[in-house]
Amino acid sequence: MESQNKASLPVMDGLERRVASRSEGARTCDLLLRVLALVLTLAAAIVLGVDKQTKVVPIKILDTLPPISLPVSAKWHYLPAFTYSVASNAIACSYAALSLALSVSGKKGMMSIVVVLDLLMVALLFSSNGAALAIGLMGYQGNSHVRWTKVCNVFGRFCNQVAVSISLSLLGSIVFLFLVGTTSLRLLKKSK
Amino acid sequence: MESQNKASLPVMDGLERRVASRSEGARTCDLLLRVLALVLTLAAAIVLGVDKQTKVVPIKILDTLPPISLPVSAKWHYLPAFTYSVASNAIACSYAALSLALSVSGKKGMMSIVVVLDLLMVALLFSSNGAALAIGLMGYQGNSHVRWTKVCNVFGRFCNQVAVSISLSLLGSIVFLFLVGTTSLRLLKKSK
Repeated sequence: MESQNKASLPVMDGLERRVASRSEGARTCDLLLRVLALVLTLAAAIVLGVDKQTKVVPIKILDTLPPISLPVSAKWHYLPAFTYSVASNAIACSYAALSLALSVSGKKGMMSIVVVLDLLMVALLFSSNGAALAIGLMGYQGNSHVRWTKVCNVFGRFCNQVAVSISLSLLGSIVFLFLVGTTSLRLLKKSK
Repeated sequence: MESQNKASLPVMDGLERRVASRSEGARTCDLLLRVLALVLTLAAAIVLGVDKQTKVVPIKILDTLPPISLPVSAKWHYLPAFTYSVASNAIACSYAALSLALSVSGKKGMMSIVVVLDLLMVALLFSSNGAALAIGLMGYQGNSHVRWTKVCNVFGRFCNQVAVSISLSLLGSIVFLFLVGTTSLRLLKKSK
């Protein structure tokens, strides 16, 4: 019996070490994903938050008069969808920093709050991406049915910056989606 | 010792029964939420998918001629955001029916796929809600900066139907969010 116990000990030790190393690996991966989410959402908020372009455009004030050239500005906060996108990315970025601090501190009691807030960030970011993309595409293409003309042929740089911000925000939201997915699958594996 | 064992048996039985009843309760709640998600997303897709309004509107073809009254139609598929919303709700509805069948069959091996697909439905539905809401609000309010005029003053019934569909879709996406949240928290509790 004693020899059996002795023989099984190194096996158990190896198994425990493997489990501990896997858990450590998962934690490192979680931390890296949170850093990535922070960087992407911060960049998305900044790129859209500083977006502004002024152009001199010929405008017809009266039908009987020739058009007058006037400077016209395009600013991100002129469209509510872009304001929502900047706000959502700023919230997600702040939360990523907070959750990173919580993860580094290793407080296990906060895990349920982090899981719920990660999920809320997925909902928040995907809804703002949908809104910004819908308005951005309308700016690129216009729509003849509702007579909304495209504006990106005039404000090209402004629109390109919007596209970059939406792409960064989309990547950030995919990182949050990945965070929730991997956590759920890990918990599912653990609970079996 | 024997009497101790006998005394502890009913306690263990009670505990097991309580755990089993809780697990059964969680399963019933999960099934009900899936039925609710199915109904809400199906209703959202139908309400928007049949949305159409025709009105006689005075249109000016030439500046020198008086406006001519012509019938103009508003249809849901004229705007890509609404097409995306109908498609997303149809996908979420079909998935809700599929996941309901999987849950009823009680196949435990499919749990990880269901968790991942529930999460993808949250992302899909929230992005389509954001897109439809952004375009819907633009239709209600218009935007003077990009010179997109509001259309809901003309097509009131059409816009109201869009609002009902977005509300239903939003409720459906909250149900999916709730499903992912409760599953994650239940798994977290189990894994402790």
